[in-house]
Amino acid sequence: MTESDLSVVHLTPGRWGDPAHPVELPAAAVGALQHLGVRRPATGPVDPVDRPGLTDEQLGFLTEVVGADHVKTDLETRWGHTRGYSTPDLLRHRAGDTTDMPDAVVYPGSHAEVQALLAACSSHHLAVVPYSGGTSVVGGLAAERRFITVDVQRLDQLVAIDEVSRTATLQAGVRGPAAEALLAERGYTLGHFPQSYEGASIGGYAAARSSGQSSAGYGRFDQMVVGLTLATPRGTIETGRAPMSAAGPDLRQLVLGSEGAFGIITSVVVRIRPRPAERHFEGWRFEDFSSGLTAIRRLAQNGPLPTVLRLSDEAETAVNLADPDVLGGGSGGVLAIVGFDGPYNAKTADVLTATGGQNLGEGPGELWRVGRYRAPYLRDPLLDEGALVETLETAGFWSKLPQLKAAVTEAVVKSLTDQGTPPLVLCHVSHVYETGASLYFTAICAQTDDPVAQWRMAKAAASAAIAAAGGTISHHHGVGTDHRDAYAAEIGPLAVEALQAVKKALDPDGVMNPGILLTSS
Amino acid sequence: MTESDLSVVHLTPGRWGDPAHPVELPAAAVGALQHLGVRRPATGPVDPVDRPGLTDEQLGFLTEVVGADHVKTDLETRWGHTRGYSTPDLLRHRAGDTTDMPDAVVYPGSHAEVQALLAACSSHHLAVVPYSGGTSVVGGLAAERRFITVDVQRLDQLVAIDEVSRTATLQAGVRGPAAEALLAERGYTLGHFPQSYEGASIGGYAAARSSGQSSAGYGRFDQMVVGLTLATPRGTIETGRAPMSAAGPDLRQLVLGSEGAFGIITSVVVRIRPRPAERHFEGWRFEDFSSGLTAIRRLAQNGPLPTVLRLSDEAETAVNLADPDVLGGGSGGVLAIVGFDGPYNAKTADVLTATGGQNLGEGPGELWRVGRYRAPYLRDPLLDEGALVETLETAGFWSKLPQLKAAVTEAVVKSLTDQGTPPLVLCHVSHVYETGASLYFTAICAQTDDPVAQWRMAKAAASAAIAAAGGTISHHHGVGTDHRDAYAAEIGPLAVEALQAVKKALDPDGVMNPGILLTSS
Repeated sequence: MTESDLSVVHLTPGRWGDPAHPVELPAAAVGALQHLGVRRPATGPVDPVDRPGLTDEQLGFLTEVVGADHVKTDLETRWGHTRGYSTPDLLRHRAGDTTDMPDAVVYPGSHAEVQALLAACSSHHLAVVPYSGGTSVVGGLAAERRFITVDVQRLDQLVAIDEVSRTATLQAGVRGPAAEALLAERGYTLGHFPQSYEGASIGGYAAARSSGQSSAGYGRFDQMVVGLTLATPRGTIETGRAPMSAAGPDLRQLVLGSEGAFGIITSVVVRIRPRPAERHFEGWRFEDFSSGLTAIRRLAQNGPLPTVLRLSDEAETAVNLADPDVLGGGSGGVLAIVGFDGPYNAKTADVLTATGGQNLGEGPGELWRVGRYRAPYLRDPLLDEGALVETLETAGFWSKLPQLKAAVTEAVVKSLTDQGTPPLVLCHVSHVYETGASLYFTAICAQTDDPVAQWRMAKAAASAAIAAAGGTISHHHGVGTDHRDAYAAEIGPLAVEALQAVKKALDPDGVMNPGILLTSS
Repeated sequence: MTESDLSVVHLTPGRWGDPAHPVELPAAAVGALQHLGVRRPATGPVDPVDRPGLTDEQLGFLTEVVGADHVKTDLETRWGHTRGYSTPDLLRHRAGDTTDMPDAVVYPGSHAEVQALLAACSSHHLAVVPYSGGTSVVGGLAAERRFITVDVQRLDQLVAIDEVSRTATLQAGVRGPAAEALLAERGYTLGHFPQSYEGASIGGYAAARSSGQSSAGYGRFDQMVVGLTLATPRGTIETGRAPMSAAGPDLRQLVLGSEGAFGIITSVVVRIRPRPAERHFEGWRFEDFSSGLTAIRRLAQNGPLPTVLRLSDEAETAVNLADPDVLGGGSGGVLAIVGFDGPYNAKTADVLTATGGQNLGEGPGELWRVGRYRAPYLRDPLLDEGALVETLETAGFWSKLPQLKAAVTEAVVKSLTDQGTPPLVLCHVSHVYETGASLYFTAICAQTDDPVAQWRMAKAAASAAIAAAGGTISHHHGVGTDHRDAYAAEIGPLAVEALQAVKKALDPDGVMNPGILLTSS
């Protein structure tokens, strides 16, 4: 099975995956959780209670733009568009908390309709939250005031393909598997496989600077984009007349990562590549994380890079591999996953061997491939059991990575231990560059009585540690509301003013995603 | 000889290279020019006449910041900082035209002094033109009102080198050869060799999105930058905590290409690579430009890319190769230059052979290497002879390149022929990407009585053709004043407003490079 064979999965917030097919935890996992003090909570999920919505005047102008069929105000649709997929989001959802629920969900059918919607919302002072896959894990869908959601799912077309230039124009609402299926019909792939692949879509990839599991071979999403179209309350911006240009700042890189604060990305021109005839995934064992880090840095700096390159630390290796025999029977050690789109590259293997790696063959690679999108699905059953599981991530330059990893781990362990819930903290590197790499952390512990506040404290400690150790507050999750203050501190007050000035120019009434990315002042 | 062996050449405007060692045209070239109707003009260069400069109050606050030794108001220094190196710049210089001459040249010695200077100039409403190498060919040094020049040449340090992360922190005033020499001491190279290499410096590379002759291997300068420090009238912005980040828009890409309109880049953190032990340059012959284009596109899309990859069209091949035997004795055909930093890659050669290329060996490659920075030096003697020679460039997606090339060539030929001076128009591709490439044009013809107006007409026709054919107004020369209107049309009024808003936030008094990149409204 390849990525494009996957059917599009309908994601229901609060329940990653199809609620008709709940994921169950393995019995062994339940036992392991008990060691962390995890106990099943006394109460289950609470149903949301509706509240008054839009005025007739507001419904009127929305209907005028997109037609009555494409304005939904029922509770089920609105509740289904409430928040994203962070653990606090899931917890608030379980509590029936409707504070971040949109007053309507509107489905425009074209760029022109998006443009008209934003202009109308601006003149009516009605806040707008753009919605593509809805998979934000950083509070990217929680505006600071009442709002409507603009869901771009009807913008689901492959508009054009240029086989000579190897570019494709995809609309914002095309989900990952659909994009791959559309491109596969012509023999191409986008090569973008983030963990949110089954749910996230093109517009969100662009707006939040997504990075996929094949980033070593295909690059990040922001590196694939050669052009994009942005609808703002004041009109449309179109960028990208050439792969690269010296005509001023790169405006694509101003829109990428803007998270809906300037407008809605309605389509993107992306670089595509021929679909590989074969794929290989292997496991490699290193003595410890430090030696594995040296090996993957060697590949990132001197090549040849594989398509997928990830390295788990000792803790993640131990948790993910119930069967230590996978690591060649040796005790300890860490696991790296190395994947190739296209022919196997023996030179990559030579570098890994020369830097102390032990080839474990395709077994662990296939295990990883099959489970690569599964982790988020486990969160709901884990929450059911009373466990708190959440991830956070950063990136930095190679020389700072060991210290960055240690500082974040220590901060999370200390915060949660101080709260009486000592955690397991796992880490891996999954995106490499010549000058540095990402670090991705998973924390698992027992829930306290107020798990949202519990995680908020741990997250604040981690964010402070990231800042102190010189990392960025996010490598691929984005800013949303969760990282907004840390982001402002990271770029500094003058850069925040510059971005606020851009926002003011494009969104003078401040209706676009108020409070997300930037404070709504 | 390698790049770092070159001593730093002092560039005198109006005379590319050292005036003590003027370059002479080969006799054969003079004969060829006569066929174009070129006649030596009756009058030679005119000396500039000075005019009143700064007030005592203005001199006072400048001196207070940098010290009296670092404020120059003599005519020679100011005239030496007047304009850049476009042909119209050289022509106006020859005419003794002082309209774009700074009232003073100030040499700050640190980031803090640059910062203090800009704050003081802002509060005194004194316009500032940043100056690093002074090699702009797009009017990047010609502000719209009277100004002082801030020359960053004293910021000439390699501040730090991080060998694990392979990054170096270089100050803005480090020129190309000095950067290579400083890095070579530690065994590294930046790999950035634009034609302006001998004169341009780090700050200008960043501010104007330079691209060097080894871009196929090392990328553009904007792809090498992982961090930068920008002094603005309102304070400092520091960017780049990681190779890549999802924390908002990429602010590095907002500063890169801002051409001094937001502030002065005082230092840059760049990716470095080990200095290659060997270099190889080869010539390859293709039947025609179209088949050569297919070959280099194949390499850009499927690899393996060499370090240098350039393809001349039939006209440029004929002009540059006085000896047709270099092309293997065959008649016609076009020349490609293929260079490798490090070992020769036979797989690259295989792709070129498979796509119809004929290997001409190292002879033409070495000829190109030796002459790679020479072309600009020929302009002065050409102007002496009465010839008009100028270049312009663009970039676009592969599928549009043939049409883009034809449209620009036709526009330049028509405009100059209509003016009674039929030109030769030569073209090459020197920068390739997966999705497209650059096109670089050289036009040669006889001067009319008003060669500045003559070229302005031809350039306007070329710019209109670029816009109509979907190219960008500049791949690596930048915007300056020459491309400002075309740039505004290219990005559209709303994007211009967004950039003006950024400028207003960082430079509320509009003292930074007024009229360059953006109109000063």
